[in-house]
Amino acid sequence: MTKHIGIYPGTFDPITNGHLDIIERGQKLFDEMIVAVAESPRKGTLFSIEERVSMIKTATKKYKNVSVESFKGLLIDYVHKKNAGVILRGLRVISDFEYEFQMALTNRKLAHDIETVFMMTKEEYAYVSSRFIKEIARLGGNLKGFVPQNVSKKLKEKYKTQKSV
Amino acid sequence: MTKHIGIYPGTFDPITNGHLDIIERGQKLFDEMIVAVAESPRKGTLFSIEERVSMIKTATKKYKNVSVESFKGLLIDYVHKKNAGVILRGLRVISDFEYEFQMALTNRKLAHDIETVFMMTKEEYAYVSSRFIKEIARLGGNLKGFVPQNVSKKLKEKYKTQKSV
Amino acid sequence: MTKHIGIYPGTFDPITNGHLDIIERGQKLFDEMIVAVAESPRKGTLFSIEERVSMIKTATKKYKNVSVESFKGLLIDYVHKKNAGVILRGLRVISDFEYEFQMALTNRKLAHDIETVFMMTKEEYAYVSSRFIKEIARLGGNLKGFVPQNVSKKLKEKYKTQKSV
Amino acid sequence: MTKHIGIYPGTFDPITNGHLDIIERGQKLFDEMIVAVAESPRKGTLFSIEERVSMIKTATKKYKNVSVESFKGLLIDYVHKKNAGVILRGLRVISDFEYEFQMALTNRKLAHDIETVFMMTKEEYAYVSSRFIKEIARLGGNLKGFVPQNVSKKLKEKYKTQKSV
Amino acid sequence: MTKHIGIYPGTFDPITNGHLDIIERGQKLFDEMIVAVAESPRKGTLFSIEERVSMIKTATKKYKNVSVESFKGLLIDYVHKKNAGVILRGLRVISDFEYEFQMALTNRKLAHDIETVFMMTKEEYAYVSSRFIKEIARLGGNLKGFVPQNVSKKLKEKYKTQKSV
Amino acid sequence: MTKHIGIYPGTFDPITNGHLDIIERGQKLFDEMIVAVAESPRKGTLFSIEERVSMIKTATKKYKNVSVESFKGLLIDYVHKKNAGVILRGLRVISDFEYEFQMALTNRKLAHDIETVFMMTKEEYAYVSSRFIKEIARLGGNLKGFVPQNVSKKLKEKYKTQKSV
Repeated sequence: MTKHIGIYPGTFDPITNGHLDIIERGQKLFDEMIVAVAESPRKGTLFSIEERVSMIKTATKKYKNVSVESFKGLLIDYVHKKNAGVILRGLRVISDFEYEFQMALTNRKLAHDIETVFMMTKEEYAYVSSRFIKEIARLGGNLKGFVPQNVSKKLKEKYKTQKSV
Repeated sequence: MTKHIGIYPGTFDPITNGHLDIIERGQKLFDEMIVAVAESPRKGTLFSIEERVSMIKTATKKYKNVSVESFKGLLIDYVHKKNAGVILRGLRVISDFEYEFQMALTNRKLAHDIETVFMMTKEEYAYVSSRFIKEIARLGGNLKGFVPQNVSKKLKEKYKTQKSV
Repeated sequence: MTKHIGIYPGTFDPITNGHLDIIERGQKLFDEMIVAVAESPRKGTLFSIEERVSMIKTATKKYKNVSVESFKGLLIDYVHKKNAGVILRGLRVISDFEYEFQMALTNRKLAHDIETVFMMTKEEYAYVSSRFIKEIARLGGNLKGFVPQNVSKKLKEKYKTQKSV
Repeated sequence: MTKHIGIYPGTFDPITNGHLDIIERGQKLFDEMIVAVAESPRKGTLFSIEERVSMIKTATKKYKNVSVESFKGLLIDYVHKKNAGVILRGLRVISDFEYEFQMALTNRKLAHDIETVFMMTKEEYAYVSSRFIKEIARLGGNLKGFVPQNVSKKLKEKYKTQKSV
Repeated sequence: MTKHIGIYPGTFDPITNGHLDIIERGQKLFDEMIVAVAESPRKGTLFSIEERVSMIKTATKKYKNVSVESFKGLLIDYVHKKNAGVILRGLRVISDFEYEFQMALTNRKLAHDIETVFMMTKEEYAYVSSRFIKEIARLGGNLKGFVPQNVSKKLKEKYKTQKSV
Repeated sequence: MTKHIGIYPGTFDPITNGHLDIIERGQKLFDEMIVAVAESPRKGTLFSIEERVSMIKTATKKYKNVSVESFKGLLIDYVHKKNAGVILRGLRVISDFEYEFQMALTNRKLAHDIETVFMMTKEEYAYVSSRFIKEIARLGGNLKGFVPQNVSKKLKEKYKTQKSV
């Protein structure tokens, strides 16, 4: 039997309960799964790459076959370097669906040997996006049910710091 | 009979004939309706909060049961403070539909006692968005049919000022 | 204050937990709400009009301001006869969204004084449709969580009868 | 390492080059893959269950880890019986996307231990559907590029027979 | 200069004001335009092919460069026979959009020399479909604004006949 | 016969193989076609207006009836000045579809005598967008198949320059 390695890439700014649902269910599909955090997206991030990796490590430490890494450059180059053949992406019923398809098709064009597979985020997380969560945190709303506790704490700190500046 | 209070929230930068269509038809659903102007959206606005509230007041003064206010912070906190139970949103056939659903679901998660209801903007306003209107105004196009006259005048002034600077 | 009467129309073949969620939340918007069961849709129904009305009555008897009726002919004629001004429809995130909009626009064209408002079905019912439920019942699947108990019982009887014929 | 078994279910009336693309790429994700042909969909099929299974067997015989079977009843019951944990579905950019999501969510509700994963059909097959192919065959059009040769031959025979009757 | 011939195909069961809007605006794009009525769609039609052609002829007689014909078999074979290079289709904001794209891609695959171009139906006809119009006529609703007068008359006759049978 | 002039507008930052596919096929619809490059979109462009026009000229020089120009201000004013009656836009299966419709409807409102027609980009270019291409170029990916050679060369130069600064 072949060893099945899957890559779950994203910006994770920050990781949400929706992402964690995909990790929980997705890791069963593979012998090994790497959560790959994009280091320097053009749009600025709220959390640094180190903070983002660290928050995911804390939230996923119970999965023996899951590791967390950051990467730079083209995703497909990273996937090749890891000898993985599969990219995993979560689709929310409410989601930037077309963007996902465009990215999957572009990646296939750039690297014919890499497949993208999609899983649907649980319906209870359908509305959870990093963007909305940051907005709620900024306005002082309750983050319970949206993100794991360690992320909730970090978000509160981040916005407190910003205000006090 | 309960007193039905509805909140119609938005950025209204500026108010359009599409928004006014929703106000005209939406106010019939409620005993009292408040147009709630979000004070400080992260993305910069062309008009100040005072200008936006004032333009809406002028354009809606004929409705006895409609008032206009600005608000800060989370929409659901504002809705609670007003003892209203319903948020009204307009859906355009061509619209940021998924965004609306995500916001409605997030608000329901944050406050179970608040409902969001949607009305469809009349098809003749399906293409009218604040974003396109500002673009047309900036390029000197004709705004008739897109916005009420007081807004049209303000838009022309705004872009004249910007050019002369 | 005006008396707010809302009509919630449908085929309800049979009523689901998704429909009941809309009734539960929708009745708060109105002083009086009528669940209006379309008598003779062109496509055949599994349950007769009497069975469908009866199942809804059982499932909604706890709501004092909710009544259940069948109707024939154009919906807008029925709405006029009831002196109601508002049609309520549920939108599922996964739904025949365009059909709903087309129907709302057609009804507005036919009767300018009637408004259609939409509420979003709770995300946990996003996938519940009468069509899927009948398919699951036909194949002997578990209906718990999809329909109320009285409907579940009726569905089992119906498919048992069909098989024994 | 766990043995990864995937089920690729469908009506396959008949199998197309789009389906074969998913089988070709999907079988790499699993140690073993079963193409599961739904025996008795309510809507009539052009080809009998035996014909459909046989056409797929011919078209997939080069894959050592792919087998073809028919099934009756609920898909999830079949998946359980096979000790498989994953359902594979192809998504076409142009596709009954919402139907797929609804089915995936319903299946998850019925069986929490089964996951549905999606792969995107290659863009060159985005427009290939069994329904269009049958229509083209019926009108005597050229099927090259749409279906494998053995299926093309069977389609021509089928429609010749129908006409001569 | 080349002579530009355009084909506007459909079932037209019956022709609507939305179709007439596309004919009015589309005929300006071509030196000659043929409204091509599909003779025998698999799904039964309310009006015979002769009735459908005749209603369109009456409604389009003012256009010198527009003719009306029926056709059988594959659309692309018909387009070739007419030495036309372009198929015109109307897109409604609310429309079977994916179906149109699938058909356009299939036709391009079958005949590389034929192009499909799309025009948007005017927003006031966005909700007008032959299917809804037949439903309204059947239930005795008012057809003004949906179809030309000659079609309205034919629809009433048709449903009167059906009832009296 | 009337002279048919078509305008193909865009930002073209830079021109892609998807755009060139539309030009290749679109120019057959018209006696004369003008590729109209929007001079100063609000969002900054990677290439200057002169660079963009020049790249398109190089890539389209084989078409006798195609010319390339830049324009400022409202598109409809430019179309009027050119005595053209038709705007051509490409639709990708994966595309900012709603944006296109909104723009077409707004332009029709601003100028009733101008029509917008759409063609579908070939499915092999469905995922090619200027935005993705710039991202791939920035990360040093292979641009073959996405853009013509002269554009590929310019993109590499541009990003080399940016880095060395």
